[in-house]
Amino acid sequence: MPDRIIESGRLAEHPISKADDKSAWKARAERELRGRPLDELTWASPEGISVRPLYTASDLAGVGHLHSMPGIAPYARGPRATMYANRPWTVRQYSGFSTAEASNAFYRANLAGGQKGLSVAFDLATHRGYDSDHPRAADDVGMAGVAVDSVEDMNILFDGIPLDEMSVSMTMNGAVLPVMAGYIVAADEQGVARRDLAGTIQNDILKEFMVRNTYIYPPAQSMRIVADVIGYCAEHMPRFNSISISGYHMQEAGATAVEELAFTLADGLEYVRAALGTGQDIDAFAPRLSFFFCIGMNFFMEIAKLRAARILWTELMERFKPRDPASSMLRMHCQTSGVSLQAQDPYNNVVRTAVEALAGVLGGTQSLHTNSFDEAIALPTPFSARIARNTQTILADETEITRVIDPLGGSYFVERLTQDMVEAARDLIDEVEQFGGMTRAIAAGMPMRRIEESSARRQARVERGEDVIVGVNKYPPQESDAVDARLIDNSEVRAAQIRRLVEVRSKRDQAGVDAALSGLSACAESGGNLLAAAIEAASRRATVGEITGALESAWGRHEARVALVPGVYSGAYGDHEGFSAVRDEIAEFADVEGRRPRIFVAKVGQDGHDRGAKAISNAFNDLGFEVEMSPLFLSPDEAAARAAELAVDVVGVSTLAGAHRTLVPELMAALTAREAEPVVVCGGVIPERDHGFLRDCGVRAIYGPGTDILEAASGILKMIPGRNR
Amino acid sequence: MPDRIIESGRLAEHPISKADDKSAWKARAERELRGRPLDELTWASPEGISVRPLYTASDLAGVGHLHSMPGIAPYARGPRATMYANRPWTVRQYSGFSTAEASNAFYRANLAGGQKGLSVAFDLATHRGYDSDHPRAADDVGMAGVAVDSVEDMNILFDGIPLDEMSVSMTMNGAVLPVMAGYIVAADEQGVARRDLAGTIQNDILKEFMVRNTYIYPPAQSMRIVADVIGYCAEHMPRFNSISISGYHMQEAGATAVEELAFTLADGLEYVRAALGTGQDIDAFAPRLSFFFCIGMNFFMEIAKLRAARILWTELMERFKPRDPASSMLRMHCQTSGVSLQAQDPYNNVVRTAVEALAGVLGGTQSLHTNSFDEAIALPTPFSARIARNTQTILADETEITRVIDPLGGSYFVERLTQDMVEAARDLIDEVEQFGGMTRAIAAGMPMRRIEESSARRQARVERGEDVIVGVNKYPPQESDAVDARLIDNSEVRAAQIRRLVEVRSKRDQAGVDAALSGLSACAESGGNLLAAAIEAASRRATVGEITGALESAWGRHEARVALVPGVYSGAYGDHEGFSAVRDEIAEFADVEGRRPRIFVAKVGQDGHDRGAKAISNAFNDLGFEVEMSPLFLSPDEAAARAAELAVDVVGVSTLAGAHRTLVPELMAALTAREAEPVVVCGGVIPERDHGFLRDCGVRAIYGPGTDILEAASGILKMIPGRNR
Repeated sequence: MPDRIIESGRLAEHPISKADDKSAWKARAERELRGRPLDELTWASPEGISVRPLYTASDLAGVGHLHSMPGIAPYARGPRATMYANRPWTVRQYSGFSTAEASNAFYRANLAGGQKGLSVAFDLATHRGYDSDHPRAADDVGMAGVAVDSVEDMNILFDGIPLDEMSVSMTMNGAVLPVMAGYIVAADEQGVARRDLAGTIQNDILKEFMVRNTYIYPPAQSMRIVADVIGYCAEHMPRFNSISISGYHMQEAGATAVEELAFTLADGLEYVRAALGTGQDIDAFAPRLSFFFCIGMNFFMEIAKLRAARILWTELMERFKPRDPASSMLRMHCQTSGVSLQAQDPYNNVVRTAVEALAGVLGGTQSLHTNSFDEAIALPTPFSARIARNTQTILADETEITRVIDPLGGSYFVERLTQDMVEAARDLIDEVEQFGGMTRAIAAGMPMRRIEESSARRQARVERGEDVIVGVNKYPPQESDAVDARLIDNSEVRAAQIRRLVEVRSKRDQAGVDAALSGLSACAESGGNLLAAAIEAASRRATVGEITGALESAWGRHEARVALVPGVYSGAYGDHEGFSAVRDEIAEFADVEGRRPRIFVAKVGQDGHDRGAKAISNAFNDLGFEVEMSPLFLSPDEAAARAAELAVDVVGVSTLAGAHRTLVPELMAALTAREAEPVVVCGGVIPERDHGFLRDCGVRAIYGPGTDILEAASGILKMIPGRNR
Repeated sequence: MPDRIIESGRLAEHPISKADDKSAWKARAERELRGRPLDELTWASPEGISVRPLYTASDLAGVGHLHSMPGIAPYARGPRATMYANRPWTVRQYSGFSTAEASNAFYRANLAGGQKGLSVAFDLATHRGYDSDHPRAADDVGMAGVAVDSVEDMNILFDGIPLDEMSVSMTMNGAVLPVMAGYIVAADEQGVARRDLAGTIQNDILKEFMVRNTYIYPPAQSMRIVADVIGYCAEHMPRFNSISISGYHMQEAGATAVEELAFTLADGLEYVRAALGTGQDIDAFAPRLSFFFCIGMNFFMEIAKLRAARILWTELMERFKPRDPASSMLRMHCQTSGVSLQAQDPYNNVVRTAVEALAGVLGGTQSLHTNSFDEAIALPTPFSARIARNTQTILADETEITRVIDPLGGSYFVERLTQDMVEAARDLIDEVEQFGGMTRAIAAGMPMRRIEESSARRQARVERGEDVIVGVNKYPPQESDAVDARLIDNSEVRAAQIRRLVEVRSKRDQAGVDAALSGLSACAESGGNLLAAAIEAASRRATVGEITGALESAWGRHEARVALVPGVYSGAYGDHEGFSAVRDEIAEFADVEGRRPRIFVAKVGQDGHDRGAKAISNAFNDLGFEVEMSPLFLSPDEAAARAAELAVDVVGVSTLAGAHRTLVPELMAALTAREAEPVVVCGGVIPERDHGFLRDCGVRAIYGPGTDILEAASGILKMIPGRNR
């Protein structure tokens, strides 16, 4: 199509525009639209916010924060008065490489390469409180992060990294007590006082119950741990952020920006109440609460979200009447969106991450993690991690965007959108409060259902082509590029961890350990600060698994209810033709076979990412499959037993944490042992390199990120051997 | 370093900020700076604009365009009323692959991949008006773009691409007559009427004299060609942009944003006057003038530049009293900055290009070219070109930034910076006008000197580490990544072109050709529209070289004066220690040897990019070398002859267009034939793959983009065999 920018001669009657009068613009715009109504250009965003084509000064009416100054409540323009003009955000890349030794070397290299703070990724065994020698953890040791079993591992992890100078972020929720304890003891043994420790612990258990699933104990006990960690830090570690209240995983699970914002702040309110409930003073702990958001591809919406977060938090904290303004000042870490990354044409992800990073920075984040471009395929390599880090250093050092504080401040659109976000999120927070707060709302399933609905609507928009993903549903590349995906063989890592565990156990004073663990159990049952008790145990070389076990013996291990949410996908797809066609195919199968096709969607191993598994389960259910969703954290044998028992046609294995090379063969063997022969398919993050291996194991199909659910359903249906067809 | 965002307890006295009062903010900011003055946060940009750390509503005072509406003069918020909300910018990738066949296939694939318009890159032989069989063009045929010798090549180039539907941009200046003629004849032969042709011809000769050097004829005759093309299009091709007034190459040569803006608009003024001088009515041609800007890494400065360009053009055009508002509406194409790309850690360039592309879009460009990440190393591959194109489709389709017109409108910073740019560029345009317009200013060397000074200052800032380039002067990668650089062997391309030339010449009516060429010569001497005469010749199958020659016989070929600009580098480096140290080394050499080290900086082949050669020449001169700068466009033999004549110690060959694999061996052979044995070094865009080849030819060192000039000077000095040392 030719581009005719100007239709010469038709403009003559327009004077230079004066003041804030949209009428001349409207007339001109309508002419350009050649009869289409101007309203067509208004966009109904997934958040339910109407985004109009033009914002002018008159749209600033009712923007409450308009004359806000940076560093001054309500902090719309940033929590600090000087922001990046004085010091850029902190480049804080989240990473962990199998062993403490490898991670330590990687951190040191990153610090030399411009990274300013550490952020430790632990493996799933550690997240779930298992030592590396626990049979249930075998496949996950050292896969998605570093394996940490005791203080000895922590000492290696931080070797040569002075903990009084380097701020350390740790993503840990379920096993927060042994990990925080290990970190503190490692610092003690470096000779660093607790008051000098700077960093952040995630310690956000509500979102684990909501979307991420690396909890260990039941909700009430888990909330006590959160409050005790907050309390301990408030008393002993004034420079340490005692919690990182996280919306990140909500967006990853499908939440809209408004949902992410509202549910995160509602979580924050709940933690404040929990801490107040243990008798702490608001100003003693609130200044060390921190937040963690995801930055997706909707550029201005994400910027507005971060600005709105600060405004709303100031407003919400007013009810607790803090005297210290720092108590109502929201500080945040951001991470670019993992779910926006695609396995197809993966170098496109460099572009996506750059755009997201810029949004995070223009929104005023305090620190940032940028994802590596290959993360939809495998865990990052040193090369991809370097490009990810460089994305930030280029923004910080080459673009001059750090020179001016909140450079978008005053933009008619950005200010209005910020206000719209504030209002929409405020309404949703009010809804949560109607339930009596987030713990109850989660118990009622409210936030999960909302997120599931948003996720289904997004999926439907992508499959209808309304939401474009370049390289996936538009402009697919004609050939795919080989990416050097990282390969981890965890057997060696695990053997080394087990050797060190044996050594630790053989050298320690066992009586002292036993006493400390008993003390911890007693504390769990009768009160006292749990982190203080965990530190005592860790210093005596009790392991992560033992500390976890001491509490588990008192409280038990939580098992989540897994439930389908019917109707979400059929609702989201509406009268989409493809959807009806697949539903008809399945109905026909049921007619011919006298039963519906039956699928068991299985999460094996310690990976709790269940967005994909839930999406497949709910969509397949709405399409007419008989769906059994597995509980989380099954062993391959447990999964095989359940599949055999249910006599399913299909087992769909969901795996995102790299353990598929061992979990899947074990599952296949266990199925064979039970003479069960379902069609087995895999979904998740699986590098192309491993596809042949999995197919050789008997896997019939492999579905990566960006899979068209309808195509998958139809394809899987055709794999089921018909008895009557 | 730990990040202490909050200094708890110190904030208590600050109330929620009210109205637009910076005093509370200042107090808070000064506290954060711990005694450093707030003024330290003000940045003196290379443009001479003071960028302050905070902008608020009070900074909008004096912003003249503040209530401007999109689609209405002065177009600060965009030339169209609906902008991308109705239709995104045009993805227009500039490319040409050796042969017309290969380019045609590439264009078709790109159009399928989301590109919306064509942009043809011609090879340097075509740019300089040589047929592929001309000996002077041998090394450049098909290297940096497509070789076009006659209408037959044009027919292949546009085969299957309907020229009434597809807008075609052609970067052609020197040989604009035969190329435009060939395009028009190809359209005729497709059956497409001239009035239906849409596209853009660059046709901007002033910037060629200023920075890019692909001129052919002397300035006055060249300006007549420009005016004749404008006149022909105004009369016959109402949908075709008859010129693309280009600042791009100025920024590539080192101009600041203000210089790029001011000199480009001053060029525009000059073209308007030239067209008016041929008796055309302002409203007959001014609506089809288009502009072309470079988007570098200074994010907000570039956005402000594009907004300021529209405002200033409206203002400048007022003096010609157009009746059609379209005459003063500036429309533009943008390209991300080639000079911002680095050979080191090349995947970083994906990030740079994404950031630059976003700036172009937020500035409201009508079409955009995004560079490929490997362009600092070689010509792009299909893979790198795809990622470059995807950068735009991702921005257009995934980020929702197209929903709102001029989303930054109202931003205190962006609006103020736009006004600052308007004022600074207006002053510089006034300076040019004092010379009597751009032709005279160029003749006086004024814009070139300004750009050279800015380039030197930039180089000095980079070498002092004040301007950071990630992967170059900060965070260099520990290992380099192999990039699959494109390898072109042009001997086959040239042979095929020559075969086709022979065929064209054998089949045509030679008498008719001769008559048409004589007509063209007559037209050159005595008047008439040159493009009309060139079309007649092209339709009879006169070649590009023959059409060029017909005019050259009348006017001669222009040779530019080459002159050093002393003092620019020593001025820019000031009392930089490294600079003095190298100057001392060279002085010592001169003391010992009794003469200064002598270098010949040679541009060989038809490549006119001379920023690098000029930078080296001027910097080495200021450092104490005796520098001879070569004229442009030397043959290897001419360069060797000159080097031998001057008895230089060093020959520095500058090559950016891919022809080094043939030019350099020819140069070495020619030196040997003359028994000259200078140290030979190469600089420019040379893939690592070719380094071994060049070293085997005898090249002692190879300097890519991002070279530290001081290190290069010191290194080269040490290579010179001492006679007395």
